[in-house]
Amino acid sequence: MTIPAGLAALVGAAHVVTDPHMVAPYNDDGRTGGGQAMCVVRPGDAAEVSAMVRWAAAAGVRLIPQGRRSGLVGAGLSGGDRDVIVSLERLAAAPVIDRANRTARVEAGVALSTLNAVAAKHGLTFPIDLGADPAIGGMIASNTGGARLMRYGDVRRNVLSLDMVRSDADGTALTLGRPVWKDSGGLDLKQMAIGASGSTGFVTAATLALHPLPATRVTAMIALHSIDPAIGLLLAAEDAFGALLTAFEGISSTALQAALAHAPRLVDPFADNCPGYVVLMELSAGAMFTADELEERLGRLLMPMIGGAIRDVAIDRGNRLWAIRHAVPDGLRAAGRVVACDIAVPRGAVPDFRRLAIERIAAISDTLVLHDFGHIGDGGVHANMVWPHGRPPFDPAAADAARAVVLATAARDFGGSFSAEHGVGPANIAAYAHFIPPGQRMLAGGVQRLMAPVTMGRVDFTGELR
Amino acid sequence: MTIPAGLAALVGAAHVVTDPHMVAPYNDDGRTGGGQAMCVVRPGDAAEVSAMVRWAAAAGVRLIPQGRRSGLVGAGLSGGDRDVIVSLERLAAAPVIDRANRTARVEAGVALSTLNAVAAKHGLTFPIDLGADPAIGGMIASNTGGARLMRYGDVRRNVLSLDMVRSDADGTALTLGRPVWKDSGGLDLKQMAIGASGSTGFVTAATLALHPLPATRVTAMIALHSIDPAIGLLLAAEDAFGALLTAFEGISSTALQAALAHAPRLVDPFADNCPGYVVLMELSAGAMFTADELEERLGRLLMPMIGGAIRDVAIDRGNRLWAIRHAVPDGLRAAGRVVACDIAVPRGAVPDFRRLAIERIAAISDTLVLHDFGHIGDGGVHANMVWPHGRPPFDPAAADAARAVVLATAARDFGGSFSAEHGVGPANIAAYAHFIPPGQRMLAGGVQRLMAPVTMGRVDFTGELR
Repeated sequence: MTIPAGLAALVGAAHVVTDPHMVAPYNDDGRTGGGQAMCVVRPGDAAEVSAMVRWAAAAGVRLIPQGRRSGLVGAGLSGGDRDVIVSLERLAAAPVIDRANRTARVEAGVALSTLNAVAAKHGLTFPIDLGADPAIGGMIASNTGGARLMRYGDVRRNVLSLDMVRSDADGTALTLGRPVWKDSGGLDLKQMAIGASGSTGFVTAATLALHPLPATRVTAMIALHSIDPAIGLLLAAEDAFGALLTAFEGISSTALQAALAHAPRLVDPFADNCPGYVVLMELSAGAMFTADELEERLGRLLMPMIGGAIRDVAIDRGNRLWAIRHAVPDGLRAAGRVVACDIAVPRGAVPDFRRLAIERIAAISDTLVLHDFGHIGDGGVHANMVWPHGRPPFDPAAADAARAVVLATAARDFGGSFSAEHGVGPANIAAYAHFIPPGQRMLAGGVQRLMAPVTMGRVDFTGELR
Repeated sequence: MTIPAGLAALVGAAHVVTDPHMVAPYNDDGRTGGGQAMCVVRPGDAAEVSAMVRWAAAAGVRLIPQGRRSGLVGAGLSGGDRDVIVSLERLAAAPVIDRANRTARVEAGVALSTLNAVAAKHGLTFPIDLGADPAIGGMIASNTGGARLMRYGDVRRNVLSLDMVRSDADGTALTLGRPVWKDSGGLDLKQMAIGASGSTGFVTAATLALHPLPATRVTAMIALHSIDPAIGLLLAAEDAFGALLTAFEGISSTALQAALAHAPRLVDPFADNCPGYVVLMELSAGAMFTADELEERLGRLLMPMIGGAIRDVAIDRGNRLWAIRHAVPDGLRAAGRVVACDIAVPRGAVPDFRRLAIERIAAISDTLVLHDFGHIGDGGVHANMVWPHGRPPFDPAAADAARAVVLATAARDFGGSFSAEHGVGPANIAAYAHFIPPGQRMLAGGVQRLMAPVTMGRVDFTGELR
């Protein structure tokens, strides 16, 4: 029996895709390069996922779980033409909100935006804030962070329970954890499916923590002469506002200019008087506080600093300033070829990391320029470099060398992470193998083989690409 | 060579305790019954822990890690006279605070109160709020929750990295995770040492997340006719105050009376007009908000409900109302023999859980009375029963039956946890084996054997007592 015929017997021929034109979109995440699958299967429920795993284990076929293809490390694409992509897009029943518990029961294929549209009707939100609109299963697989991590945590901190199908010969279905906020009843095995790139099993559904949707939001975009006062400003804002401070983002002047140049609809709040560095700060609060109040308090903190640490401030109650921040990634791509590094360092080290990175990149290439932006409030920095269009032809060796030195600066000089919020996949498995000590990789590979004795997914946590 | 002599060669004779009078305190946690160790060893650093594990693995001696003996499930006591207690009390160097990163580097033997005294000097706090004063290592081993979990999460959500010594033949030392807030660089192995009762290895130090110490706190104790309006009040408070709501505790009238009767220094805010149920609500905020403001807003929320859902309200800016809440456990012990159940259910289910528990306890015993209190904001309830002093002699069979039915009501009827914040140890391993399905226990046991191939600690996560 052919692979498609074997799968069709399990999920119905209508849900096995082999027409190359229909398969093509499943091989393309718009970023990490083409997948090579010749077959996509779209199971309709967890029982079908389980049956597929049993079948694939016996047939020696590798299944690759796939969400909405917004991942940035290629973990959802296929590495060979015998791999079968398992799109979880049909596991997309309407999320069920438990208003009193502040939780949502969500299937893996549901889009973040869909969950949040439903949650908003109950005055709630799943507050992992991203530019993309991933599937919940993909967010769990990559342990997505986002812009409001400093207040709400990453995906890991907001998963109360999950349903998964282990990659074993039986396709064993497990519910790990319970739909409660407080639980200390043994080893928390679900953690081994979070941030696991779909390589310890197939997450089919989860119970997620929701949070009250703030009634009031105010943002300030703050022009600084340089990045240096940013950390002091962060600490002052935390002391003043505590948990009302829900984002503290940084944008380098290179990244800001690229965003504004690419999206002329955006209004430059500093009227072309380009600052050395920009901070975007968000306050949000419950219904007992008005935007006027938040804005007045924000002014009380910031105004005395104008002329000193702060050059200029723009304040907004809508999405105008966030739109500038969210325009950065597209702006960078429009400006040239992007060499991406998703790193994190201790928060206080962000300015020194940045200085060292700029210095070390310059020693490698005159053409590559750091266009960093990201999440100072949690120490996460997209230390992305741009090789401008129309310059000398792109030099992959220089790009690789620059990426390596930036990752090493974060991971070795400052004890940080080589992958802050994108997870691990073919695009960065070499960095994983480089920065994670062998003893830990062997232990991780051992846990993986225990959870998933049959090889599925793209990542081998011993550090081998598969 | 005797066991003490073998250990003395590693840590020095001064740190091997064998005098029965000196050993006795290490066998007593004041709660779960006497340990049986005849030898206690007090290593001075992680290298000594590692050497001890190597020695013990070769000698066939089981080591039991112990913190400050405030655990409630007996995981830090010894089960046999050949076990050696490893007290981590000497791993207690002064915590090192990274103010900019909002983190603390802390050794396992440091007391929570010590960490918080140091953190407070930097305007920071490790906000796991407990009656006891445990060691940080013990908090990690039991994944402690506490009264402010709804705002800050449990210990698990606040560990950024940890140093551990695996229980393998080499006593392998590992640093798992990084001192950064955002990290998605592979399987998060440190999770398998958190809530693991010291049975997957010895945690020797950790980098913990700290939070801004609130400048302003206001608490309200709210008298209700019954528990029924409590959940609606919780949701209203969350909508109104968002993250400024830092605790939402519940106290039954039986528990309140026991606390007030036992501690006459406490002032009954409701002047003996005993309510059906009491809620303790805490708001806290940064320096930009005054206590007057918080109190005024709290009044705006609560006052319209007086005469309706709310019978009476007391407001406080100090520790007067919290003192009543914290007096409950001692009050219960003074009132009789306590049969403890540390459960959690979905928040909305707390009133129904309570009703069912009362009904089912009454069907078992006329003497045992539920004196529940705990953390409605996170669904955690100390569903403790009291067998009053001076009544018919304590009936252990009835107590066991009542405990079993209360745990089953939480875990089976409402899908909750049989151990919300106390972890797993000899005192509740039978409940663990009863409520966790065999497939999951076998998987957990497999992970444990991989992390810790040599048996140390009290818990076997397959569900066997050892």
